Amino acid sequence: MAVYTHLGAEDLAELIAQYDVGELVSAKGIAEGVSNSNWLIETTGGGDGGKRFILTMYERRIDISELPFFLGLLDHLAANNCPVPRTIHDRSGGASREIDGKAVALIEYLPGVSVDHPTASQARAVGIALAEMHQASKSYDKTRANGLDISMSLHTLQSCGEDALSAIDDDLPDMIAVAQRVRDAWPWDLPRSICHTDLFPDNVLMLGSRVTGMIDFYFACEEAMAYDLAVTHAAWCFDRKGKTFSADIGAALLEGYESVRKLDDAERASLPVLAQGACLRFIASRAEDWLNTPDDALVSRKDPMDYARRLAFYAEASDRAFAFSA
Amino acid sequence: MAVYTHLGAEDLAELIAQYDVGELVSAKGIAEGVSNSNWLIETTGGGDGGKRFILTMYERRIDISELPFFLGLLDHLAANNCPVPRTIHDRSGGASREIDGKAVALIEYLPGVSVDHPTASQARAVGIALAEMHQASKSYDKTRANGLDISMSLHTLQSCGEDALSAIDDDLPDMIAVAQRVRDAWPWDLPRSICHTDLFPDNVLMLGSRVTGMIDFYFACEEAMAYDLAVTHAAWCFDRKGKTFSADIGAALLEGYESVRKLDDAERASLPVLAQGACLRFIASRAEDWLNTPDDALVSRKDPMDYARRLAFYAEASDRAFAFSA
Repeated sequence: MAVYTHLGAEDLAELIAQYDVGELVSAKGIAEGVSNSNWLIETTGGGDGGKRFILTMYERRIDISELPFFLGLLDHLAANNCPVPRTIHDRSGGASREIDGKAVALIEYLPGVSVDHPTASQARAVGIALAEMHQASKSYDKTRANGLDISMSLHTLQSCGEDALSAIDDDLPDMIAVAQRVRDAWPWDLPRSICHTDLFPDNVLMLGSRVTGMIDFYFACEEAMAYDLAVTHAAWCFDRKGKTFSADIGAALLEGYESVRKLDDAERASLPVLAQGACLRFIASRAEDWLNTPDDALVSRKDPMDYARRLAFYAEASDRAFAFSA
Repeated sequence: MAVYTHLGAEDLAELIAQYDVGELVSAKGIAEGVSNSNWLIETTGGGDGGKRFILTMYERRIDISELPFFLGLLDHLAANNCPVPRTIHDRSGGASREIDGKAVALIEYLPGVSVDHPTASQARAVGIALAEMHQASKSYDKTRANGLDISMSLHTLQSCGEDALSAIDDDLPDMIAVAQRVRDAWPWDLPRSICHTDLFPDNVLMLGSRVTGMIDFYFACEEAMAYDLAVTHAAWCFDRKGKTFSADIGAALLEGYESVRKLDDAERASLPVLAQGACLRFIASRAEDWLNTPDDALVSRKDPMDYARRLAFYAEASDRAFAFSA
């Protein structure tokens, strides 16, 4: 959550001149995205409509060769009426440009704010938006493999090692055996599409109960659609520490999703194991980040146990986790 | 340059409802200000005009009892046609409110971008804006002492100690003796007003050669106006490392300033020592920050030697530093 690169007014004005959006009026570095720098840009407006944009500079973690997949996906989904920011193309039609050897893209600005405490009607709207996104992305002509699947989560936990994991929390080494069990039980043949796989409340913009934007598609990949629903469930239906499950939020999310796209029997039966896999992904990446972040660093580390608690809930109370409300 | 506090959509919407600005449409944490958290807020617009605002949360370094001075100053300067963002008052007339025990203020949003490489005409415009600000602030009815004057710079350097200073740079311990000499030569009786004292390019918004905003007044205090000009000179007329002086930028800044407010003879004669005092302030605060920031912290430390080089230039070439161009 930072701006990693300084871009002066002169750099920005020169960049903006490459697009049909008018002249630069304002640029504020915004604290969004963990692997990119972002600026909220205002211009005088041009042929491309709009006067506000998000400028993203790809700093790390993102393989530049994958940018056409990510930026093309935004355009494809926006063209299919999903609330997703489209990519603004430059005067020569390019979706991304380079500054000082770093790729940048100009992205549509969408209104809306991220909720901390979703209501059931907000969760329902998110379920609908997710299902519509799954339907729309089926016709997208590019694909990308999931680099963070259950096998990778297991591998990451094994690489951390039991000793290092136990230094974070006594219960964390057990997750290696859990990940092995979940991987062995993994349903690899569920219906697939291009999925977001990271649809946390932070990545959804809302106005009231309307989803105005789904953002940060940089983990998007081809995956089981029910897995994406399980990730979203784990991200939306608990308090931050994963101690309390909100049954009404979970039911509303599922109902919203199924109002657009019915889960088949295999998908429904798989939700508990998919949700545990989703939790293991965040447990593994948080444990790895924890061990790579110095104790006295100024960035706050995210506790992997927040997702170990969710995992325990999914393992023990799967009937309750995925029950319908009425 | 960070957002130190999380404010969810619900907190923000509740806060915005206390102002006559319409409903919350968007909120982006922005990477501005070193001691505050800031959000760029968009609303549907209301009786208070405008649809965009800066929300500032005062995190540290700022004594809350001084907020009426700072926020009142913005209103006073804006009312006197200075390009300064006014404070938006809440429905009960308050200039600041509290969230979770922290003070927040809603501030007018101004267009413009900060330049990296000012042109002479931009420097001239900054000189004019600074002088007009000095004239306007004379009628402000509140005051505040400068907590970072030359005596404090000397004290800070002495507190760091020669050993610690030499660990940063071999030449840094000499600055203690330099600060003593500059303090002994300090002209305490120059004409005073409320001054910005931190008018770096980062704190000036421009569109072309027009100053559209002077921001971040949280070091403002009663000071010698010529000192404020000297701070601005040191901040604008060199490359970042302080290795190259731009005579044309310096001349344009002074000419712009004097086109509004003529310096008297004592002020003019004092510029070299005032500029050295300005450099010592940044040398002292940067040295202190350097020693208080762990080597492996993710924030970048600012090198005090960038201002030691400027100081050497002002000591040796004061005739050239403050020469008029034509």
